[in-house]
Amino acid sequence: MTIARSEVRRAALRIAPYVRRTPTVLLGADRAGLPHDVVLKLEGLQHSGSFKARGAFNTLLSAPVPEAGVIAASGGNHGAAVAYAAARLGHRARVFVPANAPEAKLARIRRYGAEVTPVGNDYAEAYQRSLDEEARTGAVRVHAYDQREVVVGQGTVAYELSRQAPDLDTVLVAVGGGGLIAGCASWYTDSVRVVAVEPERAPTLHAARAAGSPVDVEVGGIAADALGARRLGTIAAEVTGRYVDESLLVPDAAIRRAQEVLWEELRVLAEPGGATAVAALLCGAYVGAPGERVGVLVCGANLDPASWSVLPATGV
Amino acid sequence: MTIARSEVRRAALRIAPYVRRTPTVLLGADRAGLPHDVVLKLEGLQHSGSFKARGAFNTLLSAPVPEAGVIAASGGNHGAAVAYAAARLGHRARVFVPANAPEAKLARIRRYGAEVTPVGNDYAEAYQRSLDEEARTGAVRVHAYDQREVVVGQGTVAYELSRQAPDLDTVLVAVGGGGLIAGCASWYTDSVRVVAVEPERAPTLHAARAAGSPVDVEVGGIAADALGARRLGTIAAEVTGRYVDESLLVPDAAIRRAQEVLWEELRVLAEPGGATAVAALLCGAYVGAPGERVGVLVCGANLDPASWSVLPATGV
Ligand SMILES: Cc1ncc(COP(=O)(O)O)c(C=O)c1O
Ligand SMILES: Cc1ncc(COP(=O)(O)O)c(C=O)c1O
Repeated sequence: MTIARSEVRRAALRIAPYVRRTPTVLLGADRAGLPHDVVLKLEGLQHSGSFKARGAFNTLLSAPVPEAGVIAASGGNHGAAVAYAAARLGHRARVFVPANAPEAKLARIRRYGAEVTPVGNDYAEAYQRSLDEEARTGAVRVHAYDQREVVVGQGTVAYELSRQAPDLDTVLVAVGGGGLIAGCASWYTDSVRVVAVEPERAPTLHAARAAGSPVDVEVGGIAADALGARRLGTIAAEVTGRYVDESLLVPDAAIRRAQEVLWEELRVLAEPGGATAVAALLCGAYVGAPGERVGVLVCGANLDPASWSVLPATGV
Repeated sequence: MTIARSEVRRAALRIAPYVRRTPTVLLGADRAGLPHDVVLKLEGLQHSGSFKARGAFNTLLSAPVPEAGVIAASGGNHGAAVAYAAARLGHRARVFVPANAPEAKLARIRRYGAEVTPVGNDYAEAYQRSLDEEARTGAVRVHAYDQREVVVGQGTVAYELSRQAPDLDTVLVAVGGGGLIAGCASWYTDSVRVVAVEPERAPTLHAARAAGSPVDVEVGGIAADALGARRLGTIAAEVTGRYVDESLLVPDAAIRRAQEVLWEELRVLAEPGGATAVAALLCGAYVGAPGERVGVLVCGANLDPASWSVLPATGV
């Protein structure tokens, strides 16, 4: 499946009234200890706290939504985004969540007015339930990453970044099920090098590349509630196979350190999944050339600030 | 004392290599429940966590700094900014702090490498000690708000905002000793309406206007460590007398609510002083006209995220 650049551009126009043009900020080479500056796209400032609002709005604006409303399976940012977008557009929303989803995220989904239904202990069960519900009620389902409108919507963050920072050489993107990176790579195609970053403990894309096609992986670690999809989406497999050459892994400690540096240097609070792509730079998993123009998506900020106390003080 | 616009522009060029061009973001009328959108200038993302870095750099780059280094009196953002700027430029820094200064801010001043000396129980004592020290050692003193280079430096945040959002009608600015608003009003002069916002419990400018000239006021409340100057600076008195027509007061509860809304809507953590100008909009102290183009400086973010737990959950 190929996604044309024009689809991403059209999606950007479609969702423009509903999504925020999130700001970029420069993290100087001197502050990050790197051979180059880094342009950070602060997508945690997006409505609902992550880029997921883009795919949700694009899906809900692409087809008529019946009385039965909208359904999704996700105990995390996708659930929050679908709840937010549905409320904003005046639709009912029902979100099926695995029972082990983090309380802060569930509270947020509820706060946006969705009905939250716990189902089983993992995403697969919640997802199966959403399929059943779709069949039963005719509600519109918004997949967390493997649905064309969703991927195209996520790509609008790259479209926007390419206007804010037109001269990037490289963009680092965190990967869960791969909707975000597939959308971004569909926009950038070969004009910008898109590099995938995953936690060592949630190597969905990495494992798919090693195996030659998507396979189930064990997932865990501090970013699992955002990047813990167990299997790469089929759209992501095709698009990244064509446009993404590098797939990097970072340890949890590097993700935590990236969260600390974002706070110490910029007073930006990012959740682990939101800081994962930054981690690749700071821990040396990605080494840019001097003067290389590197962009990074800081893609989510749904954490409870009070939990910050668990992070050690840093010397930055 | 008048400050020419060209001084502010020159300062912006002087400090450009050292300060961050902080981003702006739009808070939509619909999200804030207002008759107009609001452009937020996210100056908490500045180095050292507040706009104070601007005045500090401008001062230290405007005159030679001797071996004895730099001194300041402040247990808050000014102290952190002077420490940061001195370290960045390779100077020694000594900061005299009142013994009751918040520990999070003292830790930050130390982290930037300054020598921290507690003196007495209020700013006046710490300040007197900094004067003695200046006389004794010849170190360069950076005043927290009543020094020309400092005021001109703070004005560069308005200069920058005027390029990012060229068509604002009104800009809301929090006031402590008045250095920030004096700098901003010197840049905007009569081209943009600059509105002063202070906590009810720290009404320095408000009291000065009522009395016809700066007077000592009692200060307290949740923003006191940033906005708790007891007396308006003489430069601020002159500049605001000429260019600032409105001086608004907001209760602490409105400041807290503004902090909550900034987090809920934008995942921006602002300290109380940084959220005070936003509070004026949200609590109705400032009522803009439909379609008015309103900007607000979100001017500081030096708080401990873990302390956030004291804030009640909101329904935004
Ligand atoms: C903050 C954050 N970053 C990245 C991702 C990964 O997105 P995708 O599953 O489309 O790869 C997610 C998914 O939930 C997320 O919440
Ligand atoms: C976050 C913040 N906002 C506003 C102010 C007020 O600045 P001024 O004293 O120049 O009026 C301060 C002063 O410390 C501050 O720290």
